[in-house]
Amino acid sequence: MDKLQETISNLKYDDSGLIPAVMVDAETKQVLMVAYMNETALAETVRTGKAHFWSRSRQKFWLKGESSGHTQDVKAIYTDCDSDTLVIEAVQNVAACHKGYYSCFYRKLTDNGEWKVVGQRVFDPDEVYKKGS
Amino acid sequence: MDKLQETISNLKYDDSGLIPAVMVDAETKQVLMVAYMNETALAETVRTGKAHFWSRSRQKFWLKGESSGHTQDVKAIYTDCDSDTLVIEAVQNVAACHKGYYSCFYRKLTDNGEWKVVGQRVFDPDEVYKKGS
Repeated sequence: MDKLQETISNLKYDDSGLIPAVMVDAETKQVLMVAYMNETALAETVRTGKAHFWSRSRQKFWLKGESSGHTQDVKAIYTDCDSDTLVIEAVQNVAACHKGYYSCFYRKLTDNGEWKVVGQRVFDPDEVYKKGS
Repeated sequence: MDKLQETISNLKYDDSGLIPAVMVDAETKQVLMVAYMNETALAETVRTGKAHFWSRSRQKFWLKGESSGHTQDVKAIYTDCDSDTLVIEAVQNVAACHKGYYSCFYRKLTDNGEWKVVGQRVFDPDEVYKKGS
């Protein structure tokens, strides 16, 4: 087993074999999204330089941007004191959120106790994900 | 039920009733730590303006900084498109990591496939958490 594979294996994964990855903009440090990786997804992310995840809802291995083209070019990978979470700096192509916002965290809690949209729409999801394309 | 309580209840919690919270520095946006909140911890975080969590390892409600004094003053709370993750901007007192680093993400993956410490130690954990204090 090479060193990288050993390092990846030594991270702490949850009962489903997953580790959360906080994807952040490499320049501004803005959090783009949080998704989950298994060992294979992390190894493939390092190998290709493009973020890969495990989709919990679809139960499948997933290249971020495989349908939209909105890939994430990885610049740096960090782990925390417990080795159970990753922070990954990346250059985001177009936008991270499938709803058309640059960051998935486009809603802020107001003093009234409600979510308010504060992010700007970068693209129209109906156009990007249209059927048949 | 008031609006805030309704908003908190409408978030998506995992099977253990928890939602991950990515704590970020309000000014630099650096990720400080990732921890988990239940509904009570989030409500108490909003009410007091100080970050509270649910400790999965200790199975207890927890004011961040209760033993170290290294509290987090919350400035803004965001949620994502799936309503299953929070990003919380805060002013960190002293440091976030119990190992003495400002951020828990103080190790970076090198080209050799190893973790390298890149964060700076802000305090000595042996001093801050010493027995009997």
